[in-house]
Amino acid sequence: MASFDVVDLIRTKRDGGVLSDDEIRWLIRAYTDGGVGDEQMAAMAMAIFFRGLDGRELPTWTTAMINTGERMDFSSLSRPTADKHSTGGVGDKITLPLAPLVAACGVAVPQLSGRGLGHTGGTLDKLEAIPGWRASLSNADMLAQLEDVGAVICAAGTGLAPADKKLYALRDVTGTVESIAMISASIMSKKIAEGTGSLVLDVKTGSGAFMKTRENSDALARTMVALGKAAGVNTVALVTAMDAPLGRSAGNACEVAEAVEVLAGGGPADVVDLTLALAREMLACAGVDADPAEALASGRAMDVWKRMIAAQGGDPDSPLPVAQHTEVVRAASDGFITSMDAMAVGLAAWRLGAGRARKEDPVQAAAGVTWTAGVGDRVSAGQELFRLSTDDADRVPRALEALADAVTIGAERVDPGPVVLGAC
Amino acid sequence: MASFDVVDLIRTKRDGGVLSDDEIRWLIRAYTDGGVGDEQMAAMAMAIFFRGLDGRELPTWTTAMINTGERMDFSSLSRPTADKHSTGGVGDKITLPLAPLVAACGVAVPQLSGRGLGHTGGTLDKLEAIPGWRASLSNADMLAQLEDVGAVICAAGTGLAPADKKLYALRDVTGTVESIAMISASIMSKKIAEGTGSLVLDVKTGSGAFMKTRENSDALARTMVALGKAAGVNTVALVTAMDAPLGRSAGNACEVAEAVEVLAGGGPADVVDLTLALAREMLACAGVDADPAEALASGRAMDVWKRMIAAQGGDPDSPLPVAQHTEVVRAASDGFITSMDAMAVGLAAWRLGAGRARKEDPVQAAAGVTWTAGVGDRVSAGQELFRLSTDDADRVPRALEALADAVTIGAERVDPGPVVLGAC
Repeated sequence: MASFDVVDLIRTKRDGGVLSDDEIRWLIRAYTDGGVGDEQMAAMAMAIFFRGLDGRELPTWTTAMINTGERMDFSSLSRPTADKHSTGGVGDKITLPLAPLVAACGVAVPQLSGRGLGHTGGTLDKLEAIPGWRASLSNADMLAQLEDVGAVICAAGTGLAPADKKLYALRDVTGTVESIAMISASIMSKKIAEGTGSLVLDVKTGSGAFMKTRENSDALARTMVALGKAAGVNTVALVTAMDAPLGRSAGNACEVAEAVEVLAGGGPADVVDLTLALAREMLACAGVDADPAEALASGRAMDVWKRMIAAQGGDPDSPLPVAQHTEVVRAASDGFITSMDAMAVGLAAWRLGAGRARKEDPVQAAAGVTWTAGVGDRVSAGQELFRLSTDDADRVPRALEALADAVTIGAERVDPGPVVLGAC
Repeated sequence: MASFDVVDLIRTKRDGGVLSDDEIRWLIRAYTDGGVGDEQMAAMAMAIFFRGLDGRELPTWTTAMINTGERMDFSSLSRPTADKHSTGGVGDKITLPLAPLVAACGVAVPQLSGRGLGHTGGTLDKLEAIPGWRASLSNADMLAQLEDVGAVICAAGTGLAPADKKLYALRDVTGTVESIAMISASIMSKKIAEGTGSLVLDVKTGSGAFMKTRENSDALARTMVALGKAAGVNTVALVTAMDAPLGRSAGNACEVAEAVEVLAGGGPADVVDLTLALAREMLACAGVDADPAEALASGRAMDVWKRMIAAQGGDPDSPLPVAQHTEVVRAASDGFITSMDAMAVGLAAWRLGAGRARKEDPVQAAAGVTWTAGVGDRVSAGQELFRLSTDDADRVPRALEALADAVTIGAERVDPGPVVLGAC
């Protein structure tokens, strides 16, 4: 492989030039191997923040990251595969009902997930609230479960795109996360390496999302869809609302409970709507003609859920952990809830112990925030707005602080609006 | 001292914000101490490359770098002090005749210098061609020599602005050198910490200089002058030409020989002109009314030179080293030299062994390039244009390559133009 001077490459990008395919392949390989230092890649990342990667550079960059690790192969399965990725929102437990629902319709769902960092929770953290459930599976066990049960939600192995793992950790400490090019390459390198045939992206937009504006969310969605298609993955994206939190809970066990409600045919309307919308996209991408609403109503999705949890050591019928301390926030006045701040709710759940500040921190299974009224609902003064749960009472005051202005109550009812805002 | 999150600071600068004085002080201190990592400072440096530092941030940044180390104090001397800094050019031996010349006029010159890296030589490398001369002096010896001889050219101690040393090394490997803000802070932190009362900056401009355009050179000059004045140092800058190399030599021993010619009352006109122009500025800044041309003509500057070299162990009357191999480049046609490419000449001298590729490399005292005709001079076909000197014949071919198109010869005489282009 050709060798380059990394300082030349940094200067090229810094000054608005484009990198050749060979330069990008060398850079990613050398960074992964340690020949290019963290300080050099940090400078490159900041240059890319300002200059971007063009329509040729970005797929090359993404493929180069994939090629630093293994690629999974599901071609031996008897069913097509489809996966979903969300850019992260508060109360976003959609993966939990969605994976078994799509599997119940005849499409295998290999859902490699992560743990949470910051104000949005992690899918694995939520599932780990179920006694006995384990996130780690070998590739062989994952394949067997996909064939047998049809759905698996597990931790991504360290073998997928190690360059991305290293680069993501670097971007996190160098203020270079907020780049559409690098976000897209990071997400898509893992999803493409994972080997799914189809991919549906849930790109969040709004105050509680990573992307605050519709414009940026649309750009991220378009960029990722193009990367997926270029790599032969049947990819679509929905842009969905994340100003208010999804459903009626943000935390770990409480979100599992809500997912089970949805699988039982109930649950909050926004969670049901988004689950069905994403399921329809996944089935369409995979070329399977089935009605997910019927699979939900008939209980077939719940059956897959129970088998999926049990296959990974969990007891789907076991009671979920209950927190040692609860605290209630009540409405100050009569009226209609006109807004609920997803970021504030996410921060409160995080401060209660549902999330972690550092990668190595544990999370509390029972920690979280639940509520019974959302945007558009009428409340009376003194009515319970939020219930806070934690095993550590010391965490309550700062969580209450986060929620101080989380809800606004007005005289006129406002419509909560649709969850799905657009597609591309 | 207040503590900050470095990622917040990087994001502030990245997004076009300004850093508070406390944030800058904390950042520089934490970087020097290791609390802020190289990868974080590299991202910050790239953000500063794009966003700059404003008129409040830059002096704070510079002072913060100074405060990581010692400040020298020359207030006990019986004479005022003045120093000169050049941004670096090919054949720039001006410090050698200038320091003793200004000292001969009654102003003490504490000239802390560096070694060369890349195509421009280092003052210490040149002086080390003199048998016995040593660059390292203790602060006490430096002060004694300044009082006794009036001039000292020596290596900057490691105690001055250690933050700058660390940051400069980082910028060098991360493609973040080319920032007027950071160049200014780097140069001025060392010069202010050095404790000189007056400072004259020789800001080079042209194809052989770090700053290629007059616009950038003027901006760098203005920025550094403002920083010096803000720190109480009487600072002026001359912007001087660096398209063609200075004088008739680029290397080590050969440049010492040329400096001695100037001190003996001869030497190339451009070297004499620039030496006198800078001397006049230094004397004016220091408030001393004296005629440097008289000091040069009378031999008083030469007397100080000999005492200065002897005080640091050198024998000013010893023959200089002679190279084991020489090679001659001859003119291909009759005519006038219309241009001589400083960068090409510097590169040739560097490839012959006069400079180093890495900090730890040695240099050859006798290596270099000399010439007898410059821009505006008439030459005949077959006449010697360049003489290449090196102890290592293997280095000759690549040096010849560098010189292949270094000189253009035309039918019409062009004027070499003035050396000093402007002042601020």
